[in-house]
Amino acid sequence: MDKQSTQSSEVLSKIERARQARRHKFYLRDDHVTLSHGSGGKATHNLIEGIFAPAFANTILDRMEDSATITLGDQRLAFTTDSYVVNPLFFAGGDIGRLAVHGTINDLAMAGADPLYLSAGIILEEGFAIEHLQRIVDSMARAAHEAGVLIVTGDTKVVQRAKADGIFINTAGVGSVRASANLGQALVAPGDRVLLSGSVGDHGIAIMLAREELDIETEVSSDSAALHTLVAALLDRIGTRLHCLKDPTRGGVATALNEVALSAEVSIALDERAIPVHEGVRGACEILGLDALTIANEGKLLAFIAPEAEQEALRALRAHPLGREAAVIGTVQAEFPGMVFLRTDIGGTRVLDMLVGDPLPRIC
Amino acid sequence: MDKQSTQSSEVLSKIERARQARRHKFYLRDDHVTLSHGSGGKATHNLIEGIFAPAFANTILDRMEDSATITLGDQRLAFTTDSYVVNPLFFAGGDIGRLAVHGTINDLAMAGADPLYLSAGIILEEGFAIEHLQRIVDSMARAAHEAGVLIVTGDTKVVQRAKADGIFINTAGVGSVRASANLGQALVAPGDRVLLSGSVGDHGIAIMLAREELDIETEVSSDSAALHTLVAALLDRIGTRLHCLKDPTRGGVATALNEVALSAEVSIALDERAIPVHEGVRGACEILGLDALTIANEGKLLAFIAPEAEQEALRALRAHPLGREAAVIGTVQAEFPGMVFLRTDIGGTRVLDMLVGDPLPRIC
Repeated sequence: MDKQSTQSSEVLSKIERARQARRHKFYLRDDHVTLSHGSGGKATHNLIEGIFAPAFANTILDRMEDSATITLGDQRLAFTTDSYVVNPLFFAGGDIGRLAVHGTINDLAMAGADPLYLSAGIILEEGFAIEHLQRIVDSMARAAHEAGVLIVTGDTKVVQRAKADGIFINTAGVGSVRASANLGQALVAPGDRVLLSGSVGDHGIAIMLAREELDIETEVSSDSAALHTLVAALLDRIGTRLHCLKDPTRGGVATALNEVALSAEVSIALDERAIPVHEGVRGACEILGLDALTIANEGKLLAFIAPEAEQEALRALRAHPLGREAAVIGTVQAEFPGMVFLRTDIGGTRVLDMLVGDPLPRIC
Repeated sequence: MDKQSTQSSEVLSKIERARQARRHKFYLRDDHVTLSHGSGGKATHNLIEGIFAPAFANTILDRMEDSATITLGDQRLAFTTDSYVVNPLFFAGGDIGRLAVHGTINDLAMAGADPLYLSAGIILEEGFAIEHLQRIVDSMARAAHEAGVLIVTGDTKVVQRAKADGIFINTAGVGSVRASANLGQALVAPGDRVLLSGSVGDHGIAIMLAREELDIETEVSSDSAALHTLVAALLDRIGTRLHCLKDPTRGGVATALNEVALSAEVSIALDERAIPVHEGVRGACEILGLDALTIANEGKLLAFIAPEAEQEALRALRAHPLGREAAVIGTVQAEFPGMVFLRTDIGGTRVLDMLVGDPLPRIC
């Protein structure tokens, strides 16, 4: 076997072992769907590993990346989908339409792909105001235009009153994987540095603050943004020394890092002081008793980088408007595979688990 | 200009004129979303032409085909999306999972593509039974396996009780357009024959009968089926003499033909006696006062074929298990562009319009 096929069979057996490990860790005990199953955290994984992964199993899906990577002729494509059920529909820093475009672009970008084409599958509740629909559609169009992607196909369904909640949007996306990209959770290796492109928790807290029941006086805006040009800048600079990208959406940084630790059979040691958290988010988390590391972001990425490329990567991120607050937040380790550890502000170390339960349903 | 680029610029200006014609014909007057906007008929077109088409306008979307056709490197790809909100979830001949796989495969097949990869975006209502979810997911997996497609990426969201209706499923799909395929509504020309692959109305009537409020004693099963092998058989036989394919889903044969007549700037003359309708469907339509031509199908196609290929195409369809009842049902004409005429059983002729209103909400 040549070197490449040895590597590829090693990656495949790693994916297989990770699949077994996940199945061992996640077990669906529920008889009915709960809101926690939509949290992106542990219960979501229980549902995915209990129901979807075994039924749909194939070598592409089993990698459990943000996008599927598929090869057609001379093309490496990324393909992904996300549904958006965020409540409320409009919030500081964005709306459901903008989020639906950015979120799917970002899943493509995490595969190292240039996003090209999106679909829009829209479910409407009878009685929804056309004026709101127009605002949301215009916002989708603007976000797509800004990012240079085309919405090329769509579908609209309508259900009766009280059978939906205004509007749900699904976007699927197709992108072209950059030649310089070779990314995957299974490629993360001990010694890799973990970089974060900016502050955590802004999106989730902005959504919470937009809900009427809360009355906290602080200004937090969603970080909703399309990350593909940031990824391109990073790939242009460090190429294959970039091993993996994740966008910490539902379940936040804590959940995304636990997913990588499980898939890559490594542990991750984080330095809490290095993680940027805006003042408003920190304050809201204290009042609400939330951990900012479990809160959703919609314009941030985690990058796993060969140690020698750390400073170059950091410079590349910081030179981009969406990466100005980028920081090295941790290191990948060999011991205790599947675990994430947090060295806290006050000098202790604790295990950082995935989000359990769901403090913030319908965050995206 | 060489012949091919002349043809292609003719097709493009035809698409542009059709876009103007549609915009002229469809006008959104409503302030709020109604169930009719989800019918697939006239109100759906009002919504699409009033809101989505102007906001997202681009040369791929403007073609308004069942799938977008995109070119990447040496590959011609089809890309499509559909959300499924059918009620009830289980019915004679299928369930929402099977439908979600077949429907998206069929949209790809209508572009002359071999379906390859699907995504699954699932929205669940809190409290939905895991047992039902398992049945639906197993059914999706079986339908995908039977059709030889892989579900490679997915997403699950959960909303509170009474904010959805059990489960909604979005599937997007990517397929590879066959080398022999050159299909599009704009390619339909006067003289073309209209072929239908089998009986009409089975799916819609099966759904109606599965609704508890109706108590009609007749056996009708959904025709839900994956049509890509039928399309492949047709393309293998007649190649580019196949001009256009449409699957008459929401809004039925009447709506699909009106869409083609508008896009291709032609009229279509149908022979009602030639259109296969199963006894149970005919009976149910009489009792319910419905026109079988406006009822949804989920395993049928309409093919527009160069006149000299009519008999070959008919033989190719009839030789396939899903085309045994195929029939030539009409002819494309130059006069009265945008209109569909039906020569009725009793010898008269009437205009056959798109579905107006929605006799059957949430049929798919």
